[in-house]
Parts: sequence; C-alpha cells; structure tokens
Amino acid sequence: MFVQQFFVKGLAHSSYLLGGTDTCAIVDPQRDVDVYLQAAEDMGMTITHILETHLHADFISGHLDLADATGATIYAPRAGNCQFDHVAVAEGDSFSLGDLTLRVLDTPGHTPEHISYVVVDNARGPEPCALFCGDTLFVGDVGRPDLFPGQAVELATKLYSSLHDKLLQLPDFCEVYPAHGAGSLCGRAMGAKRTSTIGYERRYNAALQIADREAFVASLTTNMPAAPDHFSRCSAINAAGPARAGELPALEPLRPQQFRERSQREGALVLDIRGYESFGGMHIPGAYHIDAGGNFSTFAGWILPPDSEILLVANSETQAAEAAVMLRRVGLDRVTGVLHGGMFAWARAGLPLGHVGQVSAHELQQMTAAGEELVLVDVRAPSEYEKYHIEGAVNIPAPDLRTRYTELDPGARTIVICSTGHRSSMAASLLKQRGFTDVVNAAGGMTGYTAAGFAPECPVCVVPHGPRFLGRQVA
Amino acid sequence: MFVQQFFVKGLAHSSYLLGGTDTCAIVDPQRDVDVYLQAAEDMGMTITHILETHLHADFISGHLDLADATGATIYAPRAGNCQFDHVAVAEGDSFSLGDLTLRVLDTPGHTPEHISYVVVDNARGPEPCALFCGDTLFVGDVGRPDLFPGQAVELATKLYSSLHDKLLQLPDFCEVYPAHGAGSLCGRAMGAKRTSTIGYERRYNAALQIADREAFVASLTTNMPAAPDHFSRCSAINAAGPARAGELPALEPLRPQQFRERSQREGALVLDIRGYESFGGMHIPGAYHIDAGGNFSTFAGWILPPDSEILLVANSETQAAEAAVMLRRVGLDRVTGVLHGGMFAWARAGLPLGHVGQVSAHELQQMTAAGEELVLVDVRAPSEYEKYHIEGAVNIPAPDLRTRYTELDPGARTIVICSTGHRSSMAASLLKQRGFTDVVNAAGGMTGYTAAGFAPECPVCVVPHGPRFLGRQVA
Amino acid sequence: MFVQQFFVKGLAHSSYLLGGTDTCAIVDPQRDVDVYLQAAEDMGMTITHILETHLHADFISGHLDLADATGATIYAPRAGNCQFDHVAVAEGDSFSLGDLTLRVLDTPGHTPEHISYVVVDNARGPEPCALFCGDTLFVGDVGRPDLFPGQAVELATKLYSSLHDKLLQLPDFCEVYPAHGAGSLCGRAMGAKRTSTIGYERRYNAALQIADREAFVASLTTNMPAAPDHFSRCSAINAAGPARAGELPALEPLRPQQFRERSQREGALVLDIRGYESFGGMHIPGAYHIDAGGNFSTFAGWILPPDSEILLVANSETQAAEAAVMLRRVGLDRVTGVLHGGMFAWARAGLPLGHVGQVSAHELQQMTAAGEELVLVDVRAPSEYEKYHIEGAVNIPAPDLRTRYTELDPGARTIVICSTGHRSSMAASLLKQRGFTDVVNAAGGMTGYTAAGFAPECPVCVVPHGPRFLGRQVA
Amino acid sequence: MFVQQFFVKGLAHSSYLLGGTDTCAIVDPQRDVDVYLQAAEDMGMTITHILETHLHADFISGHLDLADATGATIYAPRAGNCQFDHVAVAEGDSFSLGDLTLRVLDTPGHTPEHISYVVVDNARGPEPCALFCGDTLFVGDVGRPDLFPGQAVELATKLYSSLHDKLLQLPDFCEVYPAHGAGSLCGRAMGAKRTSTIGYERRYNAALQIADREAFVASLTTNMPAAPDHFSRCSAINAAGPARAGELPALEPLRPQQFRERSQREGALVLDIRGYESFGGMHIPGAYHIDAGGNFSTFAGWILPPDSEILLVANSETQAAEAAVMLRRVGLDRVTGVLHGGMFAWARAGLPLGHVGQVSAHELQQMTAAGEELVLVDVRAPSEYEKYHIEGAVNIPAPDLRTRYTELDPGARTIVICSTGHRSSMAASLLKQRGFTDVVNAAGGMTGYTAAGFAPECPVCVVPHGPRFLGRQVA
Repeated sequence: MFVQQFFVKGLAHSSYLLGGTDTCAIVDPQRDVDVYLQAAEDMGMTITHILETHLHADFISGHLDLADATGATIYAPRAGNCQFDHVAVAEGDSFSLGDLTLRVLDTPGHTPEHISYVVVDNARGPEPCALFCGDTLFVGDVGRPDLFPGQAVELATKLYSSLHDKLLQLPDFCEVYPAHGAGSLCGRAMGAKRTSTIGYERRYNAALQIADREAFVASLTTNMPAAPDHFSRCSAINAAGPARAGELPALEPLRPQQFRERSQREGALVLDIRGYESFGGMHIPGAYHIDAGGNFSTFAGWILPPDSEILLVANSETQAAEAAVMLRRVGLDRVTGVLHGGMFAWARAGLPLGHVGQVSAHELQQMTAAGEELVLVDVRAPSEYEKYHIEGAVNIPAPDLRTRYTELDPGARTIVICSTGHRSSMAASLLKQRGFTDVVNAAGGMTGYTAAGFAPECPVCVVPHGPRFLGRQVA
Repeated sequence: MFVQQFFVKGLAHSSYLLGGTDTCAIVDPQRDVDVYLQAAEDMGMTITHILETHLHADFISGHLDLADATGATIYAPRAGNCQFDHVAVAEGDSFSLGDLTLRVLDTPGHTPEHISYVVVDNARGPEPCALFCGDTLFVGDVGRPDLFPGQAVELATKLYSSLHDKLLQLPDFCEVYPAHGAGSLCGRAMGAKRTSTIGYERRYNAALQIADREAFVASLTTNMPAAPDHFSRCSAINAAGPARAGELPALEPLRPQQFRERSQREGALVLDIRGYESFGGMHIPGAYHIDAGGNFSTFAGWILPPDSEILLVANSETQAAEAAVMLRRVGLDRVTGVLHGGMFAWARAGLPLGHVGQVSAHELQQMTAAGEELVLVDVRAPSEYEKYHIEGAVNIPAPDLRTRYTELDPGARTIVICSTGHRSSMAASLLKQRGFTDVVNAAGGMTGYTAAGFAPECPVCVVPHGPRFLGRQVA
Repeated sequence: MFVQQFFVKGLAHSSYLLGGTDTCAIVDPQRDVDVYLQAAEDMGMTITHILETHLHADFISGHLDLADATGATIYAPRAGNCQFDHVAVAEGDSFSLGDLTLRVLDTPGHTPEHISYVVVDNARGPEPCALFCGDTLFVGDVGRPDLFPGQAVELATKLYSSLHDKLLQLPDFCEVYPAHGAGSLCGRAMGAKRTSTIGYERRYNAALQIADREAFVASLTTNMPAAPDHFSRCSAINAAGPARAGELPALEPLRPQQFRERSQREGALVLDIRGYESFGGMHIPGAYHIDAGGNFSTFAGWILPPDSEILLVANSETQAAEAAVMLRRVGLDRVTGVLHGGMFAWARAGLPLGHVGQVSAHELQQMTAAGEELVLVDVRAPSEYEKYHIEGAVNIPAPDLRTRYTELDPGARTIVICSTGHRSSMAASLLKQRGFTDVVNAAGGMTGYTAAGFAPECPVCVVPHGPRFLGRQVA
Repeated sequence: MFVQQFFVKGLAHSSYLLGGTDTCAIVDPQRDVDVYLQAAEDMGMTITHILETHLHADFISGHLDLADATGATIYAPRAGNCQFDHVAVAEGDSFSLGDLTLRVLDTPGHTPEHISYVVVDNARGPEPCALFCGDTLFVGDVGRPDLFPGQAVELATKLYSSLHDKLLQLPDFCEVYPAHGAGSLCGRAMGAKRTSTIGYERRYNAALQIADREAFVASLTTNMPAAPDHFSRCSAINAAGPARAGELPALEPLRPQQFRERSQREGALVLDIRGYESFGGMHIPGAYHIDAGGNFSTFAGWILPPDSEILLVANSETQAAEAAVMLRRVGLDRVTGVLHGGMFAWARAGLPLGHVGQVSAHELQQMTAAGEELVLVDVRAPSEYEKYHIEGAVNIPAPDLRTRYTELDPGARTIVICSTGHRSSMAASLLKQRGFTDVVNAAGGMTGYTAAGFAPECPVCVVPHGPRFLGRQVA
C-alpha cells in the first residue's frame, strides 16, 4: 500500500494517489491531471481507479480528463446521479485494488450525496488503516453543511450521524486523508497539518466534542463564513461532467487595440493578475484585479460573473497561462486572451489608464491622525475584523462590495484595507468599476500597520468620525 | 502544526519539515539541502531547528550545510558524542517549536545513541500526535540492530525495550514518521507506505508481535541481509561532521586522453553510470558499472573503495552532475572528472574498449537448452534467489563477487543474471576487472525470463550440469 | 535593415529574418516556425512576408504554418506553380518591405523554378546590399543541378547563366545569404562560413572560376555525390503545401507489448535513435538505427520508406519528441509511437533482442592482423573512401546497402566502418534486416583507427586478402 | 573559416567567435563568458585566442575570465599597456589560427590604442575576407573620438587616417564585423544591420563621404551625444584587468529589516529594477529606478556612483540575478543584496513607501489643456527633443537631472516624459531623491502621446506658459 498526497495551494485542496501493488487509484483529482500521470509513472503504477467522494462545490474535478488519459474507471456516489460513465457506489459496496479492499460509507452532511472510502490493507491486517473522507472530516474541523440554501439544518444533522455513527466507529489508529487543508472555505478552522488519525480527531477536534446533536447542528448553521459564488455552481458542473481540457479555448496574445476591442464585446471582462502595486500604478479602466498568488482561484470563482469571456493582463504570458489553469479549476473556462506586451504596450498605444494610489502604514496613520476626511473600509471577513481593526473602519468583505458599495459615498476618498494589501486591491477594483473616484489601497494592510507599531495597540490611530463619515457606514 | 515529508528514492530515505507557526525544524536532513530551503520558503517559515535522531549509517546527513545556510541549531543525541556545534539531548529533555513541544526519548537499538522525538501540538491537545523515530520503528518493520559487529545481540535487546517500553507506550492515534521506507537496507521488509500510526503498527507489525524478548533478539540477529560496506563508515563521518558542499571538488570535464591519464593516477577509478546496454556495447576497460537509476547511491557506497578519486562516464554532463550529488550522499566526496564527449569521443580517440554481451530471455533459454558449457551466476540476494531461480544457477550476490569471484572460473563463459539486468551488469563489471574474459549479461533478468514464459513455471529451463559447471559452484 | 540567420544543423539549412523597420520577412523558413515568431517578437517586428526562393528538395518548408501563425503573405516563384495561397513572383517583380525594396531575379539551375531576392536598403543607398539566393550560390560552392533525372545538363547550363549573367552582375560589396552551409547535400563543398560577398565568391569560388560554360556543366554533372531519396519527394510536397503541424499525429507512449503489436502493422517500422553502443548492446530485431545527432534528418529521409508509420526507440521521450520534429522536417510525418520505458522495459517484458558487436580500433587491427576471415565494408561516400581507407575494405556507401547488400555474403563476419561509427551502425542495422548474422561495428570509425596510430600512415594495417574475402568485394 | 556573432542587447555589443578548423578565437568578449564556451563546444572547437581590439570604454571585457576558463592567449594592443598576461600586438604583426592568417592594423581614433584584425582565409584565397574593427568602423557610422577629454580633435584626426588610409584600402568584398550595433553610444547613428562590407560602407556610410579631413574632424567633435559616466572608467579597468567572476560578491536575499539596515550603510544604494508602474505604485524612498529592460546596463553605469554597494529591488530573485550580471558588464561589481519577498514583504513590514504617479496620454493632455500649473520635463536626449516635443516642455536629459535639477522647482508638480515612460521613471527617481515632492511619470511617453492623436500633429496640446512655469526653465 502506498499513499501520496497532492496539494493545490490556492484551493487548499488535497487529492491522493492510493497505490496497491501495480495499480492505483486517484482520489478527488484536480482538473489539471498531469501530476497524477507523472506520479504513477514514477511509482511504476497504472491508474485504474478514479474515486470521487462527492460532487465538489469549490473546484472542478479532473475525473473525466483523467479517465480519458488513462482508461481508468470512475467511482462516484450513487446519490450524485452523475451524468458521465461511472460506477455508482454507496454504503455496502466494496472493491479491490491490488492487495487493498476499499469499502464505501455513506457520509452525507457537507453535501447530500457524500461518501467516504475506508481502506483495508490485506497484506498487513484486517482492520482499516486509512480513510478517504473528502469534506466530511478535516484536520481540526468538519465539513460545512451550509452550502445548500435551505438544507443546512438537514445536512448538519446528517453530518452528525456520518461522523459519530460512521467515521468515529473506525479504530483510533486509522489514518484520515481529507480533501482539504488550512485555507479552504469548505470548513472554518482547518489545521495546517494535512493528515490526521481517527483517534486524535476524536479527542481534539472541537466539532467532535459537541456530543449533543442539536448543539452541533446549531454551531454549524450559524455564523458561518461567507461562501464564494462558485460554490453554488461547481457541484452541478461536476455532476454533468466538466469540459475536457482539449475543448477549452486557447489563450491568444492580443495587441492593445485588439485587446481593447475584444474587451468591449458582450460578456467579456478584463482580469488583471499583476501585483497590487502594478495594478495601482496603471491599469485598464474597468478591470478586475485579483493578483495571481494566494487564493486567486477562489476569489476569481467568487467575484467574476460565470460564463464571462476573460481577458488577462499579466506580468508575462507564462504567468497568464498559469492563471488560465487556475481559473479553469473553478470552472472559469472562457479565458481567451492575454494583453501582448503588457501594460507598457497599452500605455505606448496611448490608451486610457486607471490608477489606485497606495499608502504605507505611516502614510495611513498620518492621514487619519491629521483628520483627513476619508472613509476607511476594512474588506476582511467579519471574523478577522472582529479580532482587531482600526477604529472607525467600516467592515464590508471585499466580495460583498459588489452589492454593498451602495453603503458608501462614491465621491469620498475611500481607503481600502485588508490583512496585506492584496484583497483590498481587489476591493479597490470593484469600487472603481462602480464609479468611486478616489480609491486608495493600504499597502501591507493590517500586517504592515501592526508591524509599524500603530495597531492594534495604538488607540490613537482612529479614523475621525466626521458627520459625513458616520452617515456613510449606517446601513 | 505542519509536516512535510521528503523522500530520496535511491536511499529510500525520509526526512521531514516539522513546522510550528513561523518556524520549523528539519528532521534527519539529506546532504543536498536546497529542498528544505525552498520548502520553508514556500511555507513562509524560518528553519530554526535541525533534529538528528541518530548517526545515520547509510547516508551522510546535511545537518552542517543546513546549519550554515540557515543559522539553525542542530539537536543530536547526547550519546553520539558529536564533534560539531550542537545541543546534545537525551531522554528527559524537551523543547518548544512554536506551539509544539518536542520531547526526547532514548531509543537505542538500531544504533547505540538513537533517540526519538515525540511531538505534542499544544494548539490542539496535550497528547502526542506525532513521533519522529528515525530507524527505530518502520512501517511494517523495525530498525536492524546488526550493523555493529559484535553488538548485535546487545542492540537487539535494547531495541526490544525501546519499542515495547517506549514507543508502544504512545497512544494508538499517534502518527509515526520513520527515516526510511521500502527499499532501505536499514530494515528487512518495510512497506511502501511511508507513514503509519502507533496503533496500526502495534497490531500488524510482525516484529512487534514477537512478545518474547529472546525470540525477538534471535529473529533480528540471524539471517539478516548483507549490509553495504559504507554502513560501517557513514556513522563516524556524521559524528565528526561531513565536509561542506562548498569544500567538495568540482566535476571537471576531461577530454579522452586527459581522462585516461587521470584514471591511471593512484587511487583513481572509473565509474560508468550509463545503462547496461551502453556499458555492454563499449566501455573503458577496468571501469565499474553502476547505472544511475535505482539504488545507485547504495551500490556505489557498497562496492567502491572509500576515498577513491572517482571519474565518471555518463550519458551527459548533466547526468554526471546529478550522480555526483548521489555519490556525496554516501560519503563518496572525491568525484572529480567526467569524460567529455562521452564514450563516442573515447572511441574516436582510438582508445581501448571493453564489452559485455547482452542476451535476451530467449537467447538465454536457448543457450541453456542447447547445453552450452557456461556458468550462470545469479547475483541477487539469497532471499530473492530462494524464492525462485533458474535451476543450476550459482548464487553469489553482486557485491560479494569482489571476493567470491575465486569460486568461479575466469576462463568460462559466465552469464550473470539478477532481477532486471542492472545489478548483473554491475556484477559483470566486477568480473571483468578480475580477469573474466567471457562475461554475458542477462538483459531483463529474471523478470524478462519469467515474462517470456520460461521461469519459474518452466522446469525444463535448467542449466546443464556439466562436470566443469558443477565443480564451480561448490564453495 | 536587419538580418538574422537561423541555422538548422542536421540539414545545414539557413533561413533568415529580413527586417525593415517594423515589419519583416522570413526567407526559406524551416518547418518548425516558433523560432521566427520568437525572433520577430524580440525585435518588436511583425512578420508580413514569407519568401521562398525555390521548392526545396531537401526539407519541408514551414511557409504554410508560418502564414497560419502570422497572416503573412507567401511569395513563391511563378514557375513553381504552387498550389497554396501565394503571390507568384518572377524576374521583373519587386516589392517593398519598410525601407527596403526587394527585386526578384530568375535564377534557375539548382531547380527549374529557382528565384533570388536582391535587397536595396533605401535608407542607405540605391545599390543592392544583400542577396538571398537560396541554393544558387553558396559560400565556396554552387547549387547542384543534378537532382532531377534527365535534366542535369539543362539545369547546369541554366545555372551558368544564372550565376554569370545575373548574380555576378551584382556589386562586389553585396552580401550573399544562401540557404545552406557546410554539410548540406545541395552542394558538394560548402565552406563553414555561413555568409559571403559577391566579390569574394567571384574571385575565390572554384565553380565560378570555370569560365567555359561547357566545362562548368561537365564539372557539375559528373561525379556528383549521391542524392538522398527524399530529394525527389520534398519539392512536390512543398509545391502542394505540406501538412500543418496541427494535423500531424501525436507521439504516443506505448508499452512493450503494444509497441510490438503496432510495429507489426502493415507499413510500420521501428526506428532506433539511441547511440550506436546502445543499439549494439540490444535492440528490437528489424529496427532501423539512425542516431539522433548529426545528419539524422537527412539519413532518415534517405533510407526510410516514405509514408511509413514510424515507431521510435529512444533514450527518453523528450529525445523522441525532438526526433519527431526532425523527421517532419524531411516529410516523415507519421511518427506515431515511442517505446515507453525504453529498451529496459522491452527486456523486462522478455521480448526478443538483436545485437551488433562493437570493436575498438585496437580490436579491429588485431582481427585483421590475425588474419581472421571477415569482410570489412567501408560505408562512407566514395569521395571519403578515396582519400584514405583500410586496405582491402570494400566501399559501399551506407544507404546503398539497401540494394547492394547482395554483393556481400550474409553468412560472413562483416565489419562495417565509417568515419566515426555512427553511419556504420546505420549500415549494420540495414544488413541485420537483410539476414546478415554476424555484423560488427567499428566504434570510432576511421577517426579512431587513425588516432590509434594505425591508419593511414600505418601500411601494416591491411585486411588480409583471403580468397573468400576477395571473392566478396568483386561486384 | 567560421564566424558567429554574439549580441548583447543592453550594450548593443557584438563579439565574435572566429573559427579556423579545430581552434578558434573570441573577439572582444563580453564579461559573462559561458556563451563562448558553449558555442565552441557546439562547433567542436577549442578556444585558443582571445582578441581585444581596444580597451573598451563602455563595458568590462571578459578576456581574463575567458583565459582562465580556456587557457587561451590574450592578444591586446601594444599601445594599451595592459597589466595582465597577454601578447601585445601592433601593426605589422600577424599570426595564424588554423587556416587563417590574422594581420594587425593600428587604427587609433575611437581610442588611442585601437587596433583592427584583418583576416585572410588561406583555404580560399590570399585577399582579406573579413575585418574585425572594433569601434573604428560601424554599419553606417564610425567610432566616436570624443570620449577622452581634450583629445577629441587629435583622435578624430587619427580616425580619419585609420579609416581612409587603412580600412578603406581593403577590398570592397571584405566583410566588416564591428563591435557595436544600433543602440550603442560608441557611435551616433548605427544601423540595425549588424555586419556590412567595405564596399558598401565606402559608398554609403555618411561619415566616410566627408572627404575633407577637417570637416570630418569637425563633424565628430561637435554636437556629439552625451557619454555615460562609466565611459571614463571602463577603459582603465579593462587595461588593469577586471575582477574575475569568482571573486565577485554573491547576491544575498535580505529580509526587509536587514535590507533596510544594509541600505543605510555608507556607500550603499537601493536600485529598483521593476517596471515603472510598479516603482510608481510603491518603492523604497530614496531608491534609484532603472528598469531591467532596454539599456539597463548603460544607464546603470551612467547614473550610479561607482564603487557603491548595490542592493536590488526586483520582481523576483531570478530577475535580480540577471541584473547583477548586467551590472557587472559595466563594472558595477558590488551587487550584494536583493530584497527577499520584494516590495510586498517591505509593505507588510510596515516600512515607509514612496510613490510616483502615472498619467496616460489622455490625462496628460487634459492636465495641460486645463491649464494646470505644472512643469513638464522632457528627459530625452536633445536630438530626440529637437525632432518633436510638446510645446512648453523643458528639455533636460535624464542623467543630467543629477545636477541640473537645480533649474527646476522642487515644490512644483513636475511631469517627466521620455519616449515610452521608462527613462522618465528613472528621471523621476532622481528628482524624488533630490526632494521633489510631486513628481508624475508620463506612462507611454511621447509614443503614447502621439499614438493617442495628440502630438506632434496637434499644436493645441501645449503646456500653458504661466509665469511660474516660464521662470523655472531659465537656467
């Protein structure tokens, strides 16, 4: 028996190669499947099984591309009613993979059709040694059951059973291989560690300490973090079967005028993936800004209108090509162009520019201390804002600005701040699209502000509550 | 808490990055340490600790290079009496790494000074969640205690205690992170899986099922596999502190005549790392052949005289450079030259060539069926030979041919066979060095022979027992 | 004005980027056109023109792929009657490219439709500064006129006029940019230098010193080197328009049994591109051997049956992919598979092997000195053979062995020799295909033989003229 | 004979591999010499000669590193009095390189010691076929003689003789291989073409059309473009022998606080090599900005104080490493650190930021049309400014702002413009260092301004001549 984990940073997604002797299964594959082909090759194994634990809400799975490339059989939950060739499995089913026996458990909760795979290594012993539980149980957390409107309580109740009546019945020593790690929005508080054991989670996973079913349900259906927009779309795409890699449009380099014309087509948008200081320096008016690091895929899935034709502005065409892969991971398949020559070519072509000013921690502090009239919008999640924030800052999470911008004055100087400056620059791009004329990004964010010695220890650094300012933040 | 495993295939060696929050430790680092610097960088962590579980016998550790590169502190077993700057630790000691507490256990057995690190993640709970046990406990096996001549029984006895009185006292759910996986000669029968749990090993690790201490000792001190020569050298080098990467000689491209002159210097040897069919086609007379895949490091450490100046023949200078890294991993530090232009340049220079014929499974079968007078030497380990072999084949493990060649007739046609053809080509090079004139390599080895339908099901395919042949195989 | 030369080693083919200010032309493009896109990008130029001097006989041109990628217009000789979209030009035509004026000259000779482009840089002066003359005039040589059966004298006569009446009318200072350099079989004796001037060639090009037309014609229609088989095919393909890169079959990795089955299909062949020592060590019986260096494309075009399905055996799949590009350059488009895992996998699968022994210069000398009964076949071109050879060696150029093998005894030990060992290994593969049982390759070839001190200075080193040997070499 | 040209874009520097048969010379090597080792390797040649035409003023030569790597002999002008091991040559000397004969001509003018190498290819004919003339004769230009203060007239006079009495005595067909191409400041008006012939230059090189010696001298000693500062330093370094690559300091990644402390050391400076929009967005106060494209080396040599310790801010550490190579090419050897994590890390550390606003062509036009009070500084060379510029713009070339900033008002809004936005951003950084508080960069420069339809056709787009503005530009 052999297990190899693959981690996609931007999605905090873990998939697995589970090897028997000569053959292996891939569990919950990512959409760009070359990594599995290479890994199987390196191990001298043939990929014969593709195992889906559930219809993923947060990313597009690579099951079809992988099946095409390998001829392997897809196993998927019976209750998922998937529309592609597969073996539909449910509790009671089991199958072999070399020396291994895989047993299916129904573990609804995160999604209605969710199953888990329990592995027995017959070469060693008759008891389960590993559990592939998708988004049912995480390291330090459990799968969130609130992604389907109106079903949260029902799913949370099922999750309680899936955990207590199924997974926790496994032996303490059984290893736990979940589909996500720290950073995923499929849970609230996952640990950085990427695997665990039944016994350890039984004892130290906070969600599992809530013995009372109703309390458990309540804890998972109230005060949950926001769910990105694409969470409501990916499951259906995965069930229908996503487009194959070969069917997707190529990324075409476009000269400035071509790019501009293309961007004015119905349903097209410009996505700028450079760093925030570059976007701030100059950008194409109307562009979205999501920089290509961190949670790029997730934020793109969240704020970009689905089915848009996406035109990229990047530091290089290589970076654009990588971004296209990341966009496809969340079902944004129509990435068709990249600005050839970048923004320098755009500027040389004499085309219009937008700008977002950047301020350092010191500059921000001086502006607020000096009593300048401005609106400070903290675009982090409420849970981050609650921990500490600059006094007077309004909290509107970045994606929410798409609608909640109406709470703000488009004519006021508006400073956006997040933890480091990246999300706030995304927020700045949303405000600029909506007619805000004077938007400034707090470079370095709360991290820089704190590091500079101002916050949160420094109670002086408050934004002055002028009447205009107060008037704005009341909903 | 965060754990990342690094696996060096040729040594089947696992090292680890164990992360707290901002800082991390590297456990049992390999000698080429860039992978750790990159991984820490990717995680945004600073390497502050370097943890050695013991003085490794089978590879040179990278602790000093890593300390140079990072300024991290080396922790090593007190009983190891190490001669470099370090914190000497022993049972009872404990220290923090961010949120983690690491507790030291003395776990002698594989080596006398061996310690293990038990990790408690205070952010989650007070019980141990992970064990870094070096070569004490493996997945499906335990560390071999027979590497130190005359101390095998004593060490095996200590190992029993280390396992039963120390490691098995840990909770079932505690994860086990050993320093080796399948393929390492530090154990006998490790599983392909690279991590496990205390509970699973407690129940299904065969060595731990032997409750009787004496039976345990007996099982680990009799019929053990051979230990490569360098196993007796690396510990001392690791204790003294190996040479830094920057102090090692550079690999110089040498034209054929230069290469030849250099190879004739006292203490110099030629090591050919190409595939066996290339070596067989033509090679420099007197060269060692170990091809650059598989267990290259281990076999090089095993059969090459220590302190030799090594001159490489390779497919490319890139391959030679990679091989130099692999040689340094087992303490073969004097890799000074590579044949520029390869064997084609050598041949164009009109210099002498040696050859080793290759035979397919069919050719081998025909030769033996036809009753040709030949000696068939199976150079696999006795344990492999015992499972199945061609009738009449003499079993002398490849490295043993360095001395046991005297049991064979240098004038006879000698066919060498292993499982695939790689080790047997190494054996062929040893025989050629010792004056054997007609050495033939069985390409594809027993794997090909079996795949072709001949063995072991085919009892016909025996080597004819002519009197001369019989005379050879009696020791 | 800007000129950049691109040289494809295996074909000794020179193509050019000729730049005006913002736009540029590509002259005689190779089939893999990415290099031009990149170069134009680097220069900030747009490719607007694709100029063909003639229908190349020795390689497939990239004009269609380049036109697809850029939208540029193809200019081709009117007399070529090309069947793709193009501007047909002939003497008297001229056109602009930025500041440049290009004037067309009819320069038949190498081929009937051949034209040349004379460049005037109007930014500098009214006289021609550069000539793109394809295969009409080379550095130190002229284009051979003997490639079209029956037309040699007519074409040679036209070539005389093209040179003396057209090209030599240009000023001495005009730079000459030909389509080939040393190593090409489109001429006999090109210099290593890749450009020249009209004045220098006028004075020092031997072919241009022959003032008498008839003597000129005679010199170019007698004793010409052999022309590879594909020289009679490529012109037609170029005129019709070759398949686009995107239409060509992909290279599929095939496991040994699959590979074997595929190779047994009608019209399929196995092409082994590894080094000769690897091929000699073990290969798939029946395979062609052409190693991937040197004149790979040319020899492949020469000896492989056109329209065959080609299955590759290589050192790596990367090498195979590069070879596929080189094969496509000479119109061998059906490269469909590569042996996955290489010959090691083949041997492990227990499949049959062929072998070709290798001998060093010393071994060869000993064999001949000892009077062994053998046939020594020197497979170099007659012109090389004439310069020096081993006494008694039969001269049959490697490609000719496809038919002239009948002059040799398939049962005799046959040693093949060329200048370095590569071509002779190709010859060995041809002989093995034709039933020769004992074929040996002279590693290092005449170069090694000479370097070892045997030939040609050493008159002792003759192959003994036994009666059987003598009998062989008489046609 | 074989010639290969190597072109370093940023310096517009051409060096050459001149091959005989097995051996070759490198003419005027760049400082990073790996390209020559690789090229010689590819051609199967040994580098035996290193030929310097003169003591280069604009870059540091790689002669010593190349001699170290190859053992080749350095040939340098006798009048250069070089302080390293070399063969000192002067007119009358000649030497062989395989079939070639190289003859030395004294050709002073660009520098006092300048020589040229005339090549005869004895394999072809007795007349010269190639000329390596360094900076004496260029394609469309001649070497400037005004780099040595006080010697301009004398050197120009010598240059006249070197050209007319020496080089133009060579035959028309002789090819000309100069040391520079378009973009170099060693001439005024070189063509994009990188080679030429004696005959073509004789007829169409404007400088050679001036038959009168005095007129020639006058034309080359008046109205010459500015010479970068390092032009007065490199010659001496080249004569003494530059530091070897191995002796130069390594580039150390420094965390923000470390970087900041290092940058405050005596003699240290911060050099930001990102794009102008990134620099504008946020930068370290006091940093120089020269972006890593275009003429990076030349501008760095020009404006950075020699012997400074240089600390880089880059988009990536790879880019920083490449920049270090480019800096070393102009003798800026002390590049010791790079900001680890880039400006994002700096901002997160809460450290101070500077900013330069960017304006598009439209914004610039609106600002000027609206009569805003501002100073528009055109930082292009006077020759560029004269061709066309925005009415009212002050012309101060970027490097001159180091001293001529005093002509401007540090408190005024100052817009800098060049041809594309890169040089003007460098200028912006110089002004910011000198206390200018409101500096704005014209993104896209005059190119964008023109492309947008404003200039120079649009006479409306003038900067308003308010009294304050006029007052500024008068020295």
